[in-house]
Amino acid sequence: MKKFINSFDDLVRDSVAGLVMAHEGLLALNESPLFVCRRTPKAKRVALIAGGGSGHEPLHTGYVGPGMLDAACPGEVFTAPTPDQIVAAARRVEAGQGVLMIVKNYAGDTASFQMAADMLDMDCATVLVNDDVAVDSSVRTTGRRGVAGTLVVEKMVGAAAEAGADLYECKALGTRVNGCTASMGVALSSCTVPEAAAPTFEIGPSEIEVGVGIHGEPGRHRQRLVPADDIVTLLLEPVLKDLVLAPGRELLLHVNGFGGTPLMELYLLNRLATQRLQAQGFTVRRWLVGNHTTSLEMAGASLTVTALDDELLGLWDASVTTPSLRW
Amino acid sequence: MKKFINSFDDLVRDSVAGLVMAHEGLLALNESPLFVCRRTPKAKRVALIAGGGSGHEPLHTGYVGPGMLDAACPGEVFTAPTPDQIVAAARRVEAGQGVLMIVKNYAGDTASFQMAADMLDMDCATVLVNDDVAVDSSVRTTGRRGVAGTLVVEKMVGAAAEAGADLYECKALGTRVNGCTASMGVALSSCTVPEAAAPTFEIGPSEIEVGVGIHGEPGRHRQRLVPADDIVTLLLEPVLKDLVLAPGRELLLHVNGFGGTPLMELYLLNRLATQRLQAQGFTVRRWLVGNHTTSLEMAGASLTVTALDDELLGLWDASVTTPSLRW
Repeated sequence: MKKFINSFDDLVRDSVAGLVMAHEGLLALNESPLFVCRRTPKAKRVALIAGGGSGHEPLHTGYVGPGMLDAACPGEVFTAPTPDQIVAAARRVEAGQGVLMIVKNYAGDTASFQMAADMLDMDCATVLVNDDVAVDSSVRTTGRRGVAGTLVVEKMVGAAAEAGADLYECKALGTRVNGCTASMGVALSSCTVPEAAAPTFEIGPSEIEVGVGIHGEPGRHRQRLVPADDIVTLLLEPVLKDLVLAPGRELLLHVNGFGGTPLMELYLLNRLATQRLQAQGFTVRRWLVGNHTTSLEMAGASLTVTALDDELLGLWDASVTTPSLRW
Repeated sequence: MKKFINSFDDLVRDSVAGLVMAHEGLLALNESPLFVCRRTPKAKRVALIAGGGSGHEPLHTGYVGPGMLDAACPGEVFTAPTPDQIVAAARRVEAGQGVLMIVKNYAGDTASFQMAADMLDMDCATVLVNDDVAVDSSVRTTGRRGVAGTLVVEKMVGAAAEAGADLYECKALGTRVNGCTASMGVALSSCTVPEAAAPTFEIGPSEIEVGVGIHGEPGRHRQRLVPADDIVTLLLEPVLKDLVLAPGRELLLHVNGFGGTPLMELYLLNRLATQRLQAQGFTVRRWLVGNHTTSLEMAGASLTVTALDDELLGLWDASVTTPSLRW
């Protein structure tokens, strides 16, 4: 797999530096231990920190800024950040109201964030995101995986924190958003970790991996590539089964690309998924389409549905100013 | 090549409909002939129309909205839009001050836009974008190709039109921005047109195409993959040679991905290119990093440099509200 790279050792560090350079008015870089935070800290608000292995960009570093995260801690590719990164980030951004850690449910991530919380002498709480309905447990996980729904949690809790919600309220909200959010993905190709000699998994020229994880972990099954309409069925049915929504519910639909799929195809999926949800009596009120929670250059996509109410709709619509989400 | 698709015939139409769905507050769809325009037309201003083959998303449909384009006409994949699309779009968005067409320099595009202009009974002017310094002529082109610099022209002229510049001023500005903008790209992989059975071009497992076009057209030469630092040299030297800038100039740097290259690598290129420009005595004042002018799922990237002055900086910074560019 050909990549733009100088050295494996410097890839994450230099890439994060390149992000901060491109958004110098918005972001600040802490080189060692590595984290990204807002250039202008917010005052007297709950601080939100997220993090995880690199290779899912723009998640999480691309969502630091007013209305969303205060800091993000990128680990090496597909590797959890170390506790010292999280501790240093928390000490930098804590503003007297405590720290909420938004953590995708992977064994490495939960261990690092827990260890950091234990080391910190401040109020800390955690929201664990496990929106992936594909599998109950996986190679990196006890319980369900956290995937593209993480962005929804970060956005909504970010809006609440900005508006002055306290730590307890932010944690309760995050847990609630996670609970009304479900995702499932499909891969058309593998990704290749920079240091690895070979793709993460093998997949035939007309095969797809249904329920794939964002590190290329196995999903529910392999099958032949089918038309986009059938792929929407494969993804949406388990998502809706999990959410058990009454018809008439208002929804947020997030069509997420894994990195290697063109926007043209993601918008096609959006049209088909929206029409399907409408046909089933739901009202799609908001959409987000794009490569947000990626798996390096993997071709594929996931569908995420969040059940909205007036509060969640307002939090989604609230102003946000980050490198990769802005309105 | 596996793709999310129902039928080749409906791909572009359905994908554009999916875009408009996701941005229903911002965009309106005209199904036949196909174009996208703002939902809320601007009044008494020059109308800006762009268009070209699909497969380069978000260009151009993703840049319709306040501060940028009034309408975009997507052709079939890598195929110019037809004159009737452009005529219909112009009639819809013209607001008494004439229409400026921003056209990438490809034979099919220039012919369609010229034919449309001849058919329209309103003031029309054209800005031809030819920022690609890689080759003087190409398989689809007489003269240089128009590539990622098109976005810069659309953004700056969009800001001027919004502020009330007349048709003459908009055209002169577009020509000036094109003249102080230069780009060059490199491909690590080919793209595959949906209808085609095979990739657009063959490329070995450790080869790169230096100077590639955004339809996979040949560039200057083939060579072995080299470290990212050397790739920055390969791209930046011809760009700077073309622009003949005095040291001290202020620049906009646009690192554009062709679709299949992860953001992580684009930000790495951004860091290296920025450092290189700084070392040569330039000041990078603004950055844009991401997949903006793509070639379906091609892996690769281009660097675009625009020489700034106070006017152009102000136009770049002016508010913009489109699906894929917003600040």
